[in-house]
Amino acid sequence: MNNETHLYREITEQPEVLARLLANELPVVDELVESIREREISYVVIAARGSSDNAARYAKYLFGARNHLQVALATPSLFTVYRQPPQFHNALVLGISQSGRSPDIVNVLEEARSQGVLTAAITNHPSSEMGKAADYVINLQAGKERSIAATKTYTSQLAAISMISTRLAGDQKMLSDLQVTPQVISETLKIDHQIRDVAQRYRYMDACVVIGRGYNYATAFELALKLKELTYTVAEPYSSADFLHGPMAMVATGFPVLVIAPSGVLIPEIKQLIQTLSEKYAEVITISDVEQVSDLARIPLQLPVSVPEWLSPITCIIPGQLLALYLADARDYDPDHPRGLRKITKTR
Amino acid sequence: MNNETHLYREITEQPEVLARLLANELPVVDELVESIREREISYVVIAARGSSDNAARYAKYLFGARNHLQVALATPSLFTVYRQPPQFHNALVLGISQSGRSPDIVNVLEEARSQGVLTAAITNHPSSEMGKAADYVINLQAGKERSIAATKTYTSQLAAISMISTRLAGDQKMLSDLQVTPQVISETLKIDHQIRDVAQRYRYMDACVVIGRGYNYATAFELALKLKELTYTVAEPYSSADFLHGPMAMVATGFPVLVIAPSGVLIPEIKQLIQTLSEKYAEVITISDVEQVSDLARIPLQLPVSVPEWLSPITCIIPGQLLALYLADARDYDPDHPRGLRKITKTR
Repeated sequence: MNNETHLYREITEQPEVLARLLANELPVVDELVESIREREISYVVIAARGSSDNAARYAKYLFGARNHLQVALATPSLFTVYRQPPQFHNALVLGISQSGRSPDIVNVLEEARSQGVLTAAITNHPSSEMGKAADYVINLQAGKERSIAATKTYTSQLAAISMISTRLAGDQKMLSDLQVTPQVISETLKIDHQIRDVAQRYRYMDACVVIGRGYNYATAFELALKLKELTYTVAEPYSSADFLHGPMAMVATGFPVLVIAPSGVLIPEIKQLIQTLSEKYAEVITISDVEQVSDLARIPLQLPVSVPEWLSPITCIIPGQLLALYLADARDYDPDHPRGLRKITKTR
Repeated sequence: MNNETHLYREITEQPEVLARLLANELPVVDELVESIREREISYVVIAARGSSDNAARYAKYLFGARNHLQVALATPSLFTVYRQPPQFHNALVLGISQSGRSPDIVNVLEEARSQGVLTAAITNHPSSEMGKAADYVINLQAGKERSIAATKTYTSQLAAISMISTRLAGDQKMLSDLQVTPQVISETLKIDHQIRDVAQRYRYMDACVVIGRGYNYATAFELALKLKELTYTVAEPYSSADFLHGPMAMVATGFPVLVIAPSGVLIPEIKQLIQTLSEKYAEVITISDVEQVSDLARIPLQLPVSVPEWLSPITCIIPGQLLALYLADARDYDPDHPRGLRKITKTR
């Protein structure tokens, strides 16, 4: 493995990116939070694609659980294809995009602004069109992301969302937990070698399922996306609940199922799911800091540090990023240039 | 093929179910619409799982495009696992469930009612717990659904959603188009034999992708779910836009991609996508009434009748249901009893 790929470097840069974000972006977050309070925002609409859309999935749970805000994911085609945008009333409309340049996302923000609605953007390029269309812009502070597969901008998006939620909740404990995430990611990155070894086992895996629920529903989607982009595996994300409503039928002997299972209220449910999967002789791979969970897995990826459940998507994706990187390498694919993709995807 | 399966019978019952729904449920739809107007509802939250969640995806586009209403899909774990439900403010909270008995969905409706919010339910069992928790209940009129895989209740849910949208828009043209759907489904069912033949070709297909956008984003999800439930194929649904943001990397020679492409504003975009897929030597299977689209496909499933795009999800899923049925048969699976599933899935 050539560790000089952009992808590897960007994965390892994540602690410093988060530290920079936390050091620099609290003032604008506070201004946004002030506006949310003043305007008595009653729900949030988020426009995003790809990895950014997975960050939006995290926001759906975090804003719900910590701020009692219902989140809707926008349907850009209503704006760009059908030209029948919904009325946002007193929503906050939030755009999330690394480049800030996908026309469909820009379009949602511009429509929101023309409706006189409060708008905000989370982007690595504040001077982009999306940035210009927003009342408040949070800069991801990630530096240039050269690899096509997003890694450092994804975790930075999660942290930016956490900052909004934390300040809106006015919760000092949340803020101090958030402040240690750069250190926690550094520790988590140390399982690098174990994952490099494990990746060999999946050289000929064609398809798999990735399961996460609640806060880590986002992680299931993002890990599946990394596997698709970098290793061309057909990887399907599910919540453990949705998986039982139909897709469980796919599971046969040896079928690989990755389960995201950090400490938290979901552990009893997840343990039961793993038991059901084991009875069907599935190959269960876990990402967890809970030893009882790791003990149930065929291949446990043990997280070295525990964090509060609401922050766990930031640590749980790290082994997933590394697994996708090393599996791409095991298959002799170029992790920096996945076939058929470009860095900025312009969809309408 | 034994055409005496419950699944086959229920697929063929769809015209009469829709006719019954249209004949009986307009009065309650009108009462609901009256309440939506009186209470100046500003957005809609929908709670659903499995096929019902796919019907909710349709509502997201239809209510948006025709009624300017933003739709959010509920996150049941916020209610049942984290016990931190969001504040709904002046939303309509709509539950969709065949059985009306999944505890997580019931819980969302009960919480909404306790917040004093307007609630409605679309169900095949009006006296279920979900039905009891709702201010207005639309009965799917589907008769007992014995097959585990939902078919007639899914199209009936789509039609129920269409009825709400039509009456809320106060659009006579929409209503008259909707009234002919039973006849249109009857016509569409006539491609039965062609699909039985085509199914043989996919006997050894392990994985595929299903693409639809806008109104038919729902169809992509529902068709993929039928393939998973009935044929155990790893079938992943995508919007054509999301597919370009990463997953396109999976496509190699022979990779099967089902494309839902009825007449409408998306045709130019879909044709471009099929061209890109063809350059990668993907196996493109289309479901379309547009001859120019069928001409581009390796395997075209030509719809015999055209309908307005907003109603096309009701016809486009029919070939998908039949394909899943006949592919299950080609693999000697029992279509009425998929492994590992039960009719009523109780998740929290």
